[in-house]
Amino acid sequence: MNFVAAPARLSTASASFEADFAARLHWSAEQDAAIEQCVADILADVRARGDGALLEYTQRFDGLHAQSVAQLALQPDELQAAFASLPPEQQRALTAAAERVRRYHEAQKRASGESWSYTDEDGTLLGQKVTPLDRVGVYVPGGKAAYPSSVLMNAIPAQVAGVGEIIMVVPTPQGAKNALVLAAAHIAGVTRAYTIGGAQAVAALAYGTETVPKVDKITGPGNAYVASAKKRVFGTVGIDMIAGPSEILVLADGSTPPDWVAMDLFSQAEHDELAQSILLCPDAAYIDSVQAAIDRLLPEMPRAQIIAKSLSDRGALIHTRDMEEACQLSNRIAPEHLEVSSRDPHRWEPLLKHAGAIFLGAYTSESLGDYCAGPNHVLPTSGTARFSSPLGVYDFQKRSSIIEVSEQGAQQLGRIASVLAHGEGLQAHARAAEMRLNVNVNATATHYVDQES
Amino acid sequence: MNFVAAPARLSTASASFEADFAARLHWSAEQDAAIEQCVADILADVRARGDGALLEYTQRFDGLHAQSVAQLALQPDELQAAFASLPPEQQRALTAAAERVRRYHEAQKRASGESWSYTDEDGTLLGQKVTPLDRVGVYVPGGKAAYPSSVLMNAIPAQVAGVGEIIMVVPTPQGAKNALVLAAAHIAGVTRAYTIGGAQAVAALAYGTETVPKVDKITGPGNAYVASAKKRVFGTVGIDMIAGPSEILVLADGSTPPDWVAMDLFSQAEHDELAQSILLCPDAAYIDSVQAAIDRLLPEMPRAQIIAKSLSDRGALIHTRDMEEACQLSNRIAPEHLEVSSRDPHRWEPLLKHAGAIFLGAYTSESLGDYCAGPNHVLPTSGTARFSSPLGVYDFQKRSSIIEVSEQGAQQLGRIASVLAHGEGLQAHARAAEMRLNVNVNATATHYVDQES
Repeated sequence: MNFVAAPARLSTASASFEADFAARLHWSAEQDAAIEQCVADILADVRARGDGALLEYTQRFDGLHAQSVAQLALQPDELQAAFASLPPEQQRALTAAAERVRRYHEAQKRASGESWSYTDEDGTLLGQKVTPLDRVGVYVPGGKAAYPSSVLMNAIPAQVAGVGEIIMVVPTPQGAKNALVLAAAHIAGVTRAYTIGGAQAVAALAYGTETVPKVDKITGPGNAYVASAKKRVFGTVGIDMIAGPSEILVLADGSTPPDWVAMDLFSQAEHDELAQSILLCPDAAYIDSVQAAIDRLLPEMPRAQIIAKSLSDRGALIHTRDMEEACQLSNRIAPEHLEVSSRDPHRWEPLLKHAGAIFLGAYTSESLGDYCAGPNHVLPTSGTARFSSPLGVYDFQKRSSIIEVSEQGAQQLGRIASVLAHGEGLQAHARAAEMRLNVNVNATATHYVDQES
Repeated sequence: MNFVAAPARLSTASASFEADFAARLHWSAEQDAAIEQCVADILADVRARGDGALLEYTQRFDGLHAQSVAQLALQPDELQAAFASLPPEQQRALTAAAERVRRYHEAQKRASGESWSYTDEDGTLLGQKVTPLDRVGVYVPGGKAAYPSSVLMNAIPAQVAGVGEIIMVVPTPQGAKNALVLAAAHIAGVTRAYTIGGAQAVAALAYGTETVPKVDKITGPGNAYVASAKKRVFGTVGIDMIAGPSEILVLADGSTPPDWVAMDLFSQAEHDELAQSILLCPDAAYIDSVQAAIDRLLPEMPRAQIIAKSLSDRGALIHTRDMEEACQLSNRIAPEHLEVSSRDPHRWEPLLKHAGAIFLGAYTSESLGDYCAGPNHVLPTSGTARFSSPLGVYDFQKRSSIIEVSEQGAQQLGRIASVLAHGEGLQAHARAAEMRLNVNVNATATHYVDQES
C-alpha cells in the first residue's frame, strides 16, 4: 500500500498564519461520559470490596482467571528469571540504558533534592528536610503498547529517590506476559509486581486491598480509563501528569541531513495517529528537501499508515522569517520534545523558555533521549511545559519545612506575628506568640516532668 | 456565654484505640453537585464571553457594579497607597515578615532551584534548565477571612522564582477593599490586581479575557467554588494543592508550659470549626494540665465558640506509651503542622517522616511560622504531606531537560537505542538512532545552506 504523508505547509509571512497555526495546534482531551461513569463505578467497587472486586474485573477485562490476588503477584525471582530469559543483546541494552538513566537521576538528586538549612543571626534554624515517599505504584500498559523503557523511566527515579517500595502493575490480557517489561522491572528495582491493569489496578493502588498495599503516589501512562482513574484518585494519592498525545518540534537551520529530520518527525508520528510532529525552519528549500525525504523514506516504514495519518492530520512544516522567530513560535507551542537541529544550538538554546526536553545538535535524535541518554522520557505534553517539568527524582520526594526558633528569635518574631495576627483577627495566634515573649522556658520547664529522661 | 472545649481523650493502650483514632481522623471533602454544576457553567460562560460574563458575575455575587473590567483593576500606585495608609506598626510588621519570607525562599532557590549539567566521558552534555513561569495568578479570599499573610506566602516565592508577572485577584464584596491585603500585595511584588473573585476569577485567569491576561498557574486558597474551579482548570493551567481544613499536631514530652501548648492548639482551632488540633504525649498528668489550661484560657478567647466546637468535634489528646510511639502515630497522621514541644527536639526529628512543617522546641509556636519565621505557611493538609510539599519557589519554576549528544556518544547510545526500539516495535525510533552511526555530520552538512551564517 502507498501512504501519503502531507503535513501542512505554513508560513509565518502568510496573512492566514495565525488562524492556520491555531487550527493545527488545537487538541483537547475529550471527556467520554460513559468512560467516566464506568471508572467511577470500578473505583467505588474496588474500594468497597477489595480483592474480590479486583479479581472479577481482571477476569472480565483481561480474561485472566485467578483464585486470589496473591496468584497475580510477581515476586522478584520471577522478574529476575524474565531478565535471564532475554537474548544477551537485549540484556546488555537494558542494563546500559538503566545505568545511564540512574546516573542522570543521581546527579539530579544531588543538584536539587537534598535537605538544606541555615541559622540566622538570632540563632533560629530554618530549612527543609527532603525525604523519599514510602511506597509508590508504577502503572505499565500491557497488550499492544508494552514499553520496557517506560518501566525504567518511572521506576529508576523512584529508586534513586530512596522510595521504600516500588509496586508495578501491568495488565496481562489472557495471561500473556511481556518478558522485556518484567526484565526492565528487575533492572529498575521494582519491589513487587501485579498482573492487573485498568481502573481496577489504579483503585487497588490508591485505596489498598487485602493483598495490594496502598501507595502514596501513582505514576505511569495508560489508556483513557487509567487516565480518568488517576485523575479521580488524585488527592487520596499523588499522581504524575495526565499525558496527552506525544509531540516533537524540530527547529532547523538547514545544516542537518534532511533524512535525519524526516526520521525524527516519523519517530514521533509512529507512536499514535494523534501524535504531533512540527518543523520550524527559515529555509524554504530545506523544508522542500525534508518533504522529499519524508516521501522517499515513508514506504520503508513498518508503521507507515500511522505515520502518514499523524503527519497529514496534525503535522506541520512551518517556514519562518528567521531562527529568532522560530524560537518565539516554539515558546508559544511549549513542545514536549524540542530538537534544535542547528550547527550552533547554543546560540538558540537561551531563547527557548518552554519545553519538556531540549535536544541540542544534529546527533541528538529524540530517540536517543527516549531510551538511554539519561534524562527522563516522561515529559509534559499539550503545552503544559509552560508550567510543569519532566518526571524526576523530585516527584518521588517531598519536603518538610524545619523551623527552630531560638529564645532570642522568639522575641523578634513574636512582636511581628502579634501585630499581623491581630490584623487578621486571629487572637489565639497572637497570644501564642506573645506568651513566648520575655519568658525563659528553662526556668519554667522544671515544673513539668520529662518522662523521657 | 460559656463554651466547653472537650477534645477526645484517647490512649494507645486502649483496646478500642484503632477504631477511635480512625473515627477522629476521618475527614473527606464533600462534593456538592449544585456547586459543581454552577462552577462548570461559570467557567464555560467566562471562557466563551470573557469580560462581559466576568462583569455580570461580579455584579451578581459581589454586588460590585462596573462598566468595564479595566475599572476593576488595581494598579501598582493604588497598592502602594494602601501600604502608605497603614499605621507604622503594621507597615513595619508587614515589611519585616516579607523580608524574612523572601530571605528563606532565596535560600530555597539556591539549594534546589538552579540549573545544572554535566558532561559524560563521551562528551555528551546532560542537565536541566530551571526557568521561572512567565505569569501566575494568586487568588486571595475577600470578605470575612482576608489574610494579608497569605498574599506574602503566595506572591513572594513567585517573585523570588523570577516570575514575570504576578496577577492577584481578590473579591471586594460591595466594593469594600482590605488595606492590609492591598498593602501586602505591594510589599510582595504583585504586578497588578483585579477586584474579582469566585469561580469567575479563576476562569478569567485560566482562559484569559479581553482584559485579564491568561496565566500559567493559579495558587492561593478559596471557598468551595474556588476549589472546584481550580480543580477543573487544572491541566489548562497549573494549580497548587487543594487545601482541606487546617491541622496541628503537638508532640509533647511534658517540658513546655501547658498554657503554651493549649494556646497553640487554640490557634489552629480558631481558624475553622473543621480545623483539627491533636496532642500526643506519653505523660497523662501533663495531658491533664493541658486540658486544665484549655478550660482556663478558653473564656478569654474572642473566637471561643469556634475553638470549642473545633476541639470538641475534631480535637484529641492522645496518651502514648512513649515518645517513639508518638512519633510513629504522627507519621500515620502526616500532619500539616507538627510541633515537637520537647526539651530535646533533635532526638525526635529524625523519626518524623511525614509533615508539612516541623516546629522544633518550645519557643517555636506555629503562629511564628504562620506569619514571619520565613518558611511558607501554605502546607499540605489531610495527610497529603505523605506525598506533597510546602508551597515553594519550585512551584513557580519548571524544568527542561537538556541533552547534547556528541558524535562519539551517538555511536554508543545509538546501538542501545536501536536494540530497545526494535524490542518495542518502534522502527522509526531505531532508524533515527541508526542514521547517526558512523556518519560525520560536518562532512555531510556542507550540502545544506545555513541561512543564519
